[in-house]
Amino acid sequence: MSSYTAIKLIARPKPGPVTPDIFEVVQQEIPKAGPGQILIKQTHMSLDPAMLGWMSPDPESYIPPVELGAVMRSSGLGEVVESNHPDFAVGDRLMGIMGWTEYCLSTGQGLNKVQPGLDAETVLSVFALPGLTATQGLFGFGDPKKGETIVVSGAAGSVGSLVGQLAKAEGLNVIGVAGDDEKCDWLVNELGFDGAINYKTDDIAAKLKALAPKGIDIYFENTGGPIQQHVFDRMNAHGRIVVCGMIADYGKAEPSAGPNWIPIIKKRLTIQGFAMPDHFGDVPALVARLTPYVMAGKIKHRAHVLEGLESAISGLNLFFTGGNKGKLIVKL
Amino acid sequence: MSSYTAIKLIARPKPGPVTPDIFEVVQQEIPKAGPGQILIKQTHMSLDPAMLGWMSPDPESYIPPVELGAVMRSSGLGEVVESNHPDFAVGDRLMGIMGWTEYCLSTGQGLNKVQPGLDAETVLSVFALPGLTATQGLFGFGDPKKGETIVVSGAAGSVGSLVGQLAKAEGLNVIGVAGDDEKCDWLVNELGFDGAINYKTDDIAAKLKALAPKGIDIYFENTGGPIQQHVFDRMNAHGRIVVCGMIADYGKAEPSAGPNWIPIIKKRLTIQGFAMPDHFGDVPALVARLTPYVMAGKIKHRAHVLEGLESAISGLNLFFTGGNKGKLIVKL
Repeated sequence: MSSYTAIKLIARPKPGPVTPDIFEVVQQEIPKAGPGQILIKQTHMSLDPAMLGWMSPDPESYIPPVELGAVMRSSGLGEVVESNHPDFAVGDRLMGIMGWTEYCLSTGQGLNKVQPGLDAETVLSVFALPGLTATQGLFGFGDPKKGETIVVSGAAGSVGSLVGQLAKAEGLNVIGVAGDDEKCDWLVNELGFDGAINYKTDDIAAKLKALAPKGIDIYFENTGGPIQQHVFDRMNAHGRIVVCGMIADYGKAEPSAGPNWIPIIKKRLTIQGFAMPDHFGDVPALVARLTPYVMAGKIKHRAHVLEGLESAISGLNLFFTGGNKGKLIVKL
Repeated sequence: MSSYTAIKLIARPKPGPVTPDIFEVVQQEIPKAGPGQILIKQTHMSLDPAMLGWMSPDPESYIPPVELGAVMRSSGLGEVVESNHPDFAVGDRLMGIMGWTEYCLSTGQGLNKVQPGLDAETVLSVFALPGLTATQGLFGFGDPKKGETIVVSGAAGSVGSLVGQLAKAEGLNVIGVAGDDEKCDWLVNELGFDGAINYKTDDIAAKLKALAPKGIDIYFENTGGPIQQHVFDRMNAHGRIVVCGMIADYGKAEPSAGPNWIPIIKKRLTIQGFAMPDHFGDVPALVARLTPYVMAGKIKHRAHVLEGLESAISGLNLFFTGGNKGKLIVKL
């Protein structure tokens, strides 16, 4: 009889950094798959900024919060180790919501088989939530057109880095915003962004003016924070703002103010918020849309891999500090 | 040789109420129509909140500002008194941009003939800019659906009163926001709104909760001001916000802050700004869309008529004070 580790959410987070006391690490007996079930051994777990929202009760959010006492929610990659389900065989690799756990039982619902040959980091960095989010946000709402200028905040993050590369492949002038020089360097010299702004040290307004002399047509918003007003001020007529994340504000007791709405009229802006659960039905189409860019070698990624389930707890705080270099993955 | 009066803009307005010193009242000789021209005697002039924006230079606005020394811009209704143009006969009634003037010359470009039988107040209150704006904003961007709840700010204004009546005719729960009890009473008892909020004296949050128990699906924003955050807080998932006017902020040196953007993601909101000059090509379709409601007797209006060209100057300040009761029209 073997045991495995899982981590449960036992209290709601307070504003500020995530503290370990809101989680409980438990050892449990590895179960057997019941009729119609499969047993999955998770190999890699994805950490995403959206998790910070999932931990807090908010009746108006797009997805119910994680219940207290339940295993913390996350998506991941796992291998079928036991199957009583005709559609799944031992050895199949599956992707989907598995949670902070080394093993889980499933009926297979909501899980997708992963193409053989793709390494785990590519799967979780490109074809999982970040890539689906980037593809839906940019093409579903951003309406990118060759020659236009796009600004991406959180550009070195898992979603932002893909949005920028997709936009670059479409022929846009791509400006990324990130929080340190190493990330900015990576955006420009590795990913091919046309420019990058270090929001902590650069003169944001001056640099935006230099990098976007004809104004900004699309703002892909992953962060909030001081960059928001600066980009807003330089939006062009008929500009599109896709609001995907507000990480700079998630940990705040008092959310910061947004821009005044007069320019929304003057420039006839469209501001569109979205969240992937609304689009889970479109996953096959999104994967089909994304795949050619990956196959053409236009999408680079980098993963920031943490080791062991418990590293997820402090790992969440890397979203607040910007300490992660690429997609956060926990290797189990 | 007779003369007529016109009013020119000679200085840019300062924040706060409009002062007479930015205008010059001039007497000019009535011109003769040249080849291909018509001479129009304006009979009624429309005052619209958008004029406040037209007076200030803003390279990013949707329409160039009125040049200093030029006749102030406005739309109006006039009669052809001399014609050298095959498409226009003496006695034709025309609607369009004519300016603050008793007479103007035109080639007819941009002017539309007015259906006989419609009185001047109906033309300028319903079928001119306010009705086109209400129709484009509500149906073009608001996507109203029977049973949904809409909140209209500036609801007793020329655009807002039409938006609310159109929405009511479509079977929505319609809540209007206005600045005095007489207007609120008019909205509910004359126009058939389901509820009204006096933003100056009511407990806005409590009243919104009572009138929109299932939340708000559409916010038609004409004013800005404190109502904005309250409505924003009660928007439903997939809500639409149509931003048409921000009168509460136009006169301010420092525009007020907008709402934080986190709810835009959580509720997947769409915020759309618009301005009618983008849609002037659709005027025939908009008139066709609006006409059946008028013919069915579903659209009431009231005009607030000022007498004489010079009344336009102080008349503009009624937009700031909310002192107008219905569509502002200057009778010449």
